Amino acid sequence: MTAAIDPFHAISISRQAHRLASEGRSVIHMEFGQPSTGAPAAAIAAAHRVLDSDAMGYWESPALKARIARHYAETQQVSIDSEQILLTCGASPALVLALTTRFAPGARVALARPGYVAYRNTLKALHMVPVELACGAEQGFQISAAAIAALDPAPDGLILASPANPTGTIIPEAELAAIAALCRARGIGLISDEIYHGLSYGAPTRSLLRSAPEALVINSFSKYFSMAGWRLGWLVVPPALLDAARARIGNFFLTPPSLSQHAGLAAFEGRDELDGHVATYARNRDLLLAALPRLGLARIAPPDGAFYIYADIGHLTADSLNFCERLLHDTGVATAPGIDFDPVEGHRFLRFSFAVSTDRVETALARLIPWFAAQPRR
Amino acid sequence: MTAAIDPFHAISISRQAHRLASEGRSVIHMEFGQPSTGAPAAAIAAAHRVLDSDAMGYWESPALKARIARHYAETQQVSIDSEQILLTCGASPALVLALTTRFAPGARVALARPGYVAYRNTLKALHMVPVELACGAEQGFQISAAAIAALDPAPDGLILASPANPTGTIIPEAELAAIAALCRARGIGLISDEIYHGLSYGAPTRSLLRSAPEALVINSFSKYFSMAGWRLGWLVVPPALLDAARARIGNFFLTPPSLSQHAGLAAFEGRDELDGHVATYARNRDLLLAALPRLGLARIAPPDGAFYIYADIGHLTADSLNFCERLLHDTGVATAPGIDFDPVEGHRFLRFSFAVSTDRVETALARLIPWFAAQPRR
Repeated sequence: MTAAIDPFHAISISRQAHRLASEGRSVIHMEFGQPSTGAPAAAIAAAHRVLDSDAMGYWESPALKARIARHYAETQQVSIDSEQILLTCGASPALVLALTTRFAPGARVALARPGYVAYRNTLKALHMVPVELACGAEQGFQISAAAIAALDPAPDGLILASPANPTGTIIPEAELAAIAALCRARGIGLISDEIYHGLSYGAPTRSLLRSAPEALVINSFSKYFSMAGWRLGWLVVPPALLDAARARIGNFFLTPPSLSQHAGLAAFEGRDELDGHVATYARNRDLLLAALPRLGLARIAPPDGAFYIYADIGHLTADSLNFCERLLHDTGVATAPGIDFDPVEGHRFLRFSFAVSTDRVETALARLIPWFAAQPRR
Repeated sequence: MTAAIDPFHAISISRQAHRLASEGRSVIHMEFGQPSTGAPAAAIAAAHRVLDSDAMGYWESPALKARIARHYAETQQVSIDSEQILLTCGASPALVLALTTRFAPGARVALARPGYVAYRNTLKALHMVPVELACGAEQGFQISAAAIAALDPAPDGLILASPANPTGTIIPEAELAAIAALCRARGIGLISDEIYHGLSYGAPTRSLLRSAPEALVINSFSKYFSMAGWRLGWLVVPPALLDAARARIGNFFLTPPSLSQHAGLAAFEGRDELDGHVATYARNRDLLLAALPRLGLARIAPPDGAFYIYADIGHLTADSLNFCERLLHDTGVATAPGIDFDPVEGHRFLRFSFAVSTDRVETALARLIPWFAAQPRR
């Protein structure tokens, strides 16, 4: 028997949104976690140059791997060998690579609920067993060392995501270190999804590698680097797992797009432009946080990073998918229903993605405020 | 326990070849299965245009899916809905998608030996069981309906590859139909890897879809379309498996590179240029076939397609890896050892890839003929 997997409802919301737009409606896309901006100019320029000069066969860029290793040294003060970087077609295949390198079918792997739906689904599709840890707003929707300590028996693995999707919350570094120590002591294999690194509104994001060099760490060019459609990501692999990971990448995936690797290397020279996007997200976040009381949405956890707000709408509905559909049809604002991130409590949550331009956020709020005010309380 | 996987020895040959080249040696790369040419001019031009006009988020091109569906109608006379085309980052992830959609861990999946190493390795890494069917030169190195009929118990699945890697041999269409009928009768799930379609030197290549619409069919832009580093492929999924395959692609991979999808669509307008590459391969193949007697390599199967010749070197060595290394160091010609494709008999085979320019083939032969003449028989 192959495994049954839940659909991703934000995709159906997005399809409806595109249909409305094709009918002439003004639609604001806040349903997906992708920047509305393109790659930095330096990356585009590099791509133009390479297009005319390179036959682009299967290729893995030594310079990009070295640059990523240097990025860890510069931003995280951790030293990794560039050979520990495996380049992938985005973070998604990096997760498949990490899971199949570290775990076998039947492995029990813990993760936060709410969380990114692909963790649960990918585990199930690989015939591993998701162990969902309920994390409410009071815990910042995040896994703690205490929650791991309370698990009996210990799971085989743990997926951390900080900043998290759908909540944007960040695990404090002291807590990360406590989780790392506990997992080491209990023999729990660690995977850290750091795809939202570089996107934070207080302290800088901190890699789990600082406290757990034995972890498998996922990252990509899709969020901070604003290059989602270029399909370029990476997995940092500890030396002990490197042969196993290399064998899998060579058979499962081969190399990521050659042009994207050239452009990704150049994107490191576009940091000013990229930091400008982060400043836009910070403005958008401030606007949304300021408006939440007027939307009647009081219960959220602090979105310290990423570009999401995950709001409790339980006073208005017990069916978040229906709520998102009504919201879209009445206002043209597309959002993601909580059931995509939490099959148990998600019926009373909604995720806004604010990785759009500030004027789009302002337009959205002008529509959302009267609409929310008109919704009856349950 | 995660699965142990064999290394791909052609990669170590290639590393040695690049080291020799960096030391100033003249090296001819015949070790890998990739065109030395780039994408067609129409694809490059489309990429330049899109780079300047598209923010390139996660995206799946409806026009490309429709064009691929039309390609099947035009070249294979089979009608498929464009929604049956799932776009992937190359054929490798399409295989992962096909296997996990159709089979569960423990499934027994038959395949030809010799064959592309990733079939066996990917099956093992997904905890499925490769059932290798020994196929010698007398069977054209290919699986037959008779070989499937003889299997007791029936395997859960079967991977076909025609034209095949490493041999270039093609399964005749009548035999494909007999295999399809037998698999239908015995409940064996079919996967057909058609990555070398468009590359044949006699009759045109024929899709398994003509006789088995229930099969999962893999193809890509890496070979005929000469776009290996663009990482674009597809999987044709029968309607009954579409929901399961869509759920997996959305969690495992998301979308392929946006730029590559635009370029891939444009590549269909570059058929004259691409057919010119096939004419080059045909010339290269003729040169090699004519020279084989002078190399003392008499035992091959007819390389009807792809761009490989798989030659029996058993009269010269019982260690194909060592033979390839000596050949490279003495002549600068890099080849792939048979052990990459056949763990049992591969110690006495060698694969030449002739997807290079004709003058490179001529230069290679000028070095190979005296070198082979000087080798002692075992």
